[in-house]
Amino acid sequence: MLGLGLIGGSVLRAASAAGWRAWGCNRTPVHAPGYDVADDISVVLRRAVADDALVVLAVPMTALAEVLGMVAQHAPGCALTDVVSVKRPVADLVWRSGLGARFVGGHPMAGTSASGWDAGSAGLFTGAAWVVAADDGVDPDVWAQVAGLALACGAHVVPAGSAEHDAAVARISHLPHLLAAVLASVGADGGPLAMGLAAGSFRDGTRVAGTRPELTAAMVEANAAALRDVLDDALGRLGAARGALTSTGSVVATVAAGHTARRLFDDRRAFDITGVDLRDVAALRAAGHAGGVLRSLG
Amino acid sequence: MLGLGLIGGSVLRAASAAGWRAWGCNRTPVHAPGYDVADDISVVLRRAVADDALVVLAVPMTALAEVLGMVAQHAPGCALTDVVSVKRPVADLVWRSGLGARFVGGHPMAGTSASGWDAGSAGLFTGAAWVVAADDGVDPDVWAQVAGLALACGAHVVPAGSAEHDAAVARISHLPHLLAAVLASVGADGGPLAMGLAAGSFRDGTRVAGTRPELTAAMVEANAAALRDVLDDALGRLGAARGALTSTGSVVATVAAGHTARRLFDDRRAFDITGVDLRDVAALRAAGHAGGVLRSLG
Repeated sequence: MLGLGLIGGSVLRAASAAGWRAWGCNRTPVHAPGYDVADDISVVLRRAVADDALVVLAVPMTALAEVLGMVAQHAPGCALTDVVSVKRPVADLVWRSGLGARFVGGHPMAGTSASGWDAGSAGLFTGAAWVVAADDGVDPDVWAQVAGLALACGAHVVPAGSAEHDAAVARISHLPHLLAAVLASVGADGGPLAMGLAAGSFRDGTRVAGTRPELTAAMVEANAAALRDVLDDALGRLGAARGALTSTGSVVATVAAGHTARRLFDDRRAFDITGVDLRDVAALRAAGHAGGVLRSLG
Repeated sequence: MLGLGLIGGSVLRAASAAGWRAWGCNRTPVHAPGYDVADDISVVLRRAVADDALVVLAVPMTALAEVLGMVAQHAPGCALTDVVSVKRPVADLVWRSGLGARFVGGHPMAGTSASGWDAGSAGLFTGAAWVVAADDGVDPDVWAQVAGLALACGAHVVPAGSAEHDAAVARISHLPHLLAAVLASVGADGGPLAMGLAAGSFRDGTRVAGTRPELTAAMVEANAAALRDVLDDALGRLGAARGALTSTGSVVATVAAGHTARRLFDDRRAFDITGVDLRDVAALRAAGHAGGVLRSLG
């Protein structure tokens, strides 16, 4: 584990609890009694080489290039994954560092409003989705190792292409954060009267605007390319509602489509992917695209 | 009570529980044992004249003109209020029906996702805000009667101008409903993969899209004029975020403003309006504008 913040620290705990031999380091020392934590990244990486370990990048996007330089220097042959919230930009950096051949990206979909080692827990990923990047050309052995780590941590595996992942999380995570920020600002512009009348719809719609803004901004900005397209979708739909309100006085089309969509979300059912050869990355990707999840590698 | 749906039925129950002599009628008969409910609106209105009662309009906006015609015919001299979610359009209709002189609008800010007599309760308004329209020229005796009804139902009174009310609820209720609908649609466009990865931010941001769409559309459309301005604010802010993402790659301004705004909401504190002459409607309006509420008429 390179990085022992909320996510990295929770992976170290969860993997250890599942019986994996796991060790890690953090830029600033953490107090982690009972865990195998070192101060020096070069020491940690040399142990990874000696043990043929899976190296997990769990540092912020802004620190990734520097850490990849250390990996390229000390452990260039190790299997490599990450837990960052975007996949294409991470994969691009990894390839530019010469580490692409044994890299398979990952993204556990778990909470980010708290941060740091102390906020983590071994149970953070229980029942969560953990995307494992199913891009053409990935090493199937590394893919299985990364999927195995996700399963060991209690998550289910969602196979997805990196670009497809980034587009999906732009829709269901990064857009919600921007809309919450905009809604909060427009509401507060109404002054104490509007704030005094605000109730459930405003409270729910703005909840994630309470997250630390530097964390939200960093997450959203790392996915800028995918988010632009999704923002254009949202702007188009909102503009259409504005136009309909002016021309016909009706927002039925907008509201009815939203209602249907929310029911799709409420009624969603993942299906278990079975009988797919783990070396057939296109089949894995297609199954994830259709709503499938892996709950075991058996 | 003219109309015994969720709101009207709850006002009838709450006012009765507070010792008010209250009676009402509904377009379709309701089963309301223990309550004074009639089938014929003309009978109900003639009793209102005989008892010098406060008449409460609790019918949907779409039925309002017809019901106002009955009031004008049978009880044109009675004090009159309403519980509809917009105030300017209702006031306009009331004035066009020749009933403006003894009308003071009202809006209890209570749940609307369920509907009908059976969904109501005497406690629906406990601790809720109840806007009482403080427009220039209102009859102070009627204003005090309407405020008294709100207080008897367990609500606190927020004095506000009708146009100011409509602008505020557009910001904190009608815009959230439209954003939730747009977010739900954009999310669902991502297919089963996006739905499978969606978690807290999407769930909260789309919750009110689960409301019956015809109720949401009717509520939103009745406030079209105020909502257009608020939609333009939201479109402007969202467009600015889109532009910043493209030009500088940063959404810090959007996210930081939203975070500050959400904290304003979390930290809001109503103050009690005291020592204001209830006949001074401009002073009441100014106090409500600043975040004040009336908890008694004493």
